[in-house]
Amino acid sequence: MTPATTPATSYVVAIDVGGTGMKGGLVTDDGEIALHRHRPTDRAAPVAGVRAFAAELAALGAAHFGHGPRAAGLAVPGLVEDGVARYSATLGWRDVPAAEFCDLDVPVALGHDVHAAGLAEAEHAPERDFLLLPIGTSIAGAMVLRGRPYASTLAGQIGHIPVWPDGEACPCGQRGCLAAYASAGAIAARYGTPGAAEVARAVAAGEPRAGAVWARAVEALALALATYTLILDPAAIVIGGGLARSGDLLLAPLRDRLAARLAFRDPPALRASALGTRAGVLGAAMLTRG
Amino acid sequence: MTPATTPATSYVVAIDVGGTGMKGGLVTDDGEIALHRHRPTDRAAPVAGVRAFAAELAALGAAHFGHGPRAAGLAVPGLVEDGVARYSATLGWRDVPAAEFCDLDVPVALGHDVHAAGLAEAEHAPERDFLLLPIGTSIAGAMVLRGRPYASTLAGQIGHIPVWPDGEACPCGQRGCLAAYASAGAIAARYGTPGAAEVARAVAAGEPRAGAVWARAVEALALALATYTLILDPAAIVIGGGLARSGDLLLAPLRDRLAARLAFRDPPALRASALGTRAGVLGAAMLTRG
Repeated sequence: MTPATTPATSYVVAIDVGGTGMKGGLVTDDGEIALHRHRPTDRAAPVAGVRAFAAELAALGAAHFGHGPRAAGLAVPGLVEDGVARYSATLGWRDVPAAEFCDLDVPVALGHDVHAAGLAEAEHAPERDFLLLPIGTSIAGAMVLRGRPYASTLAGQIGHIPVWPDGEACPCGQRGCLAAYASAGAIAARYGTPGAAEVARAVAAGEPRAGAVWARAVEALALALATYTLILDPAAIVIGGGLARSGDLLLAPLRDRLAARLAFRDPPALRASALGTRAGVLGAAMLTRG
Repeated sequence: MTPATTPATSYVVAIDVGGTGMKGGLVTDDGEIALHRHRPTDRAAPVAGVRAFAAELAALGAAHFGHGPRAAGLAVPGLVEDGVARYSATLGWRDVPAAEFCDLDVPVALGHDVHAAGLAEAEHAPERDFLLLPIGTSIAGAMVLRGRPYASTLAGQIGHIPVWPDGEACPCGQRGCLAAYASAGAIAARYGTPGAAEVARAVAAGEPRAGAVWARAVEALALALATYTLILDPAAIVIGGGLARSGDLLLAPLRDRLAARLAFRDPPALRASALGTRAGVLGAAMLTRG
């Protein structure tokens, strides 16, 4: 007689590397985050920092599940191509192969953070055509077209479309970019606070100067999203990243202004991401599916 | 002994219906235009006009090939959905089914004119990701993504993305649309001539006011194409329609301005359509492939 056995739970180590913090998790093959940790990004040695975090999570996994992970999934910012982190302006690396981020003895999948978040969002969104727009330090878009993430190294640069040509200078070298008005970083800088959360609080309290900065960000987003809508006709636009936490303070006026910018067609549905900042870790885990 | 026979040439009647003229042809299954005709669009009774033109072409086909067409393909402007011409502002129709445009006893395929042109261009373009932008009375785009035309009733409205928010009023009801500066119609209207060809001639002759109208159109196109490039990263942008006939008078400055609007990436290749105005008829024929 064969003894009854419980099959071992298969899981992966998943890390979403951001400019200031790293989110990590142990994600089971049915998409549950069994354990979640947060670490600051080591700006001086970011690659070694990811490697140490991966080792820590794998040790936690061995203790929790009684065995090691089947793979590791890493979502990183910047330019990613063929499993190599080509370039990140924020973190300063160039041409780092996946294996350098992780010395566990398992397959390592490396992908772009916004693309990874889009993979996770696509599993939860009912629409086959949508844009996920995470708004944080910067702005980039993950596009899902006909049910499939549209991945391309240089596509989805929605943060850098010119909303007011010849407007604000953007660190990217262009002028009038969406991100120069509406990224969390730009909103904070324009108001003069360390973060956008302080601006949101001031807006909610009725502070006029904060209201003006916020309205300008909303109008920039309305212009960019009207443009995206006219080109690709999405069924929904999903706002993610830190700024999505301000909820209707952002979404209500943005819905109005997007509708006002579209004369001959209805706007798509506009909502905050249901996954929130978990999208990055879940997406990093999905990268390991190959 | 079986006598040797030449197999009958299979062909279709193909018509590209425009706001002022219709282009028609007999297109063989290997994509040759065996015969080509041009008729003015009957603005008072456009559907009956198409029907008469289709009958005329079928009669010419019977005489030429000794047998009737296997199908008819019709490319029409406006909104087209599920083989029904839903709406055309220019031609004033609403909800006209394909069969009403053609009473030949063959299958009739109906599609959107810009989408049809994109189908034809996709067969000839070496790139798997490109934008075909026909510039005529209005501007719309046919997008080819991963080698496949991206068809959607409301997508590709590149003529109505806001290039200068709160700029010129556009007949569509929005402000600052690309088409309000750069359609052949807008260029002619801004300069005060019946057509854009007169403006092009004045530009070539160094007339300053024509030069200013032209430069404004070029800048509007550069902004719209920079935006498209940042979102979808095409390998090429192909300019079609009447305005493409001005060649380097348009393309040379547009290449410069597009590159100037993109700071952190190279611009895609920019060229005039090799098919020119034949793209519509060839695409209409391709609609019959189902």
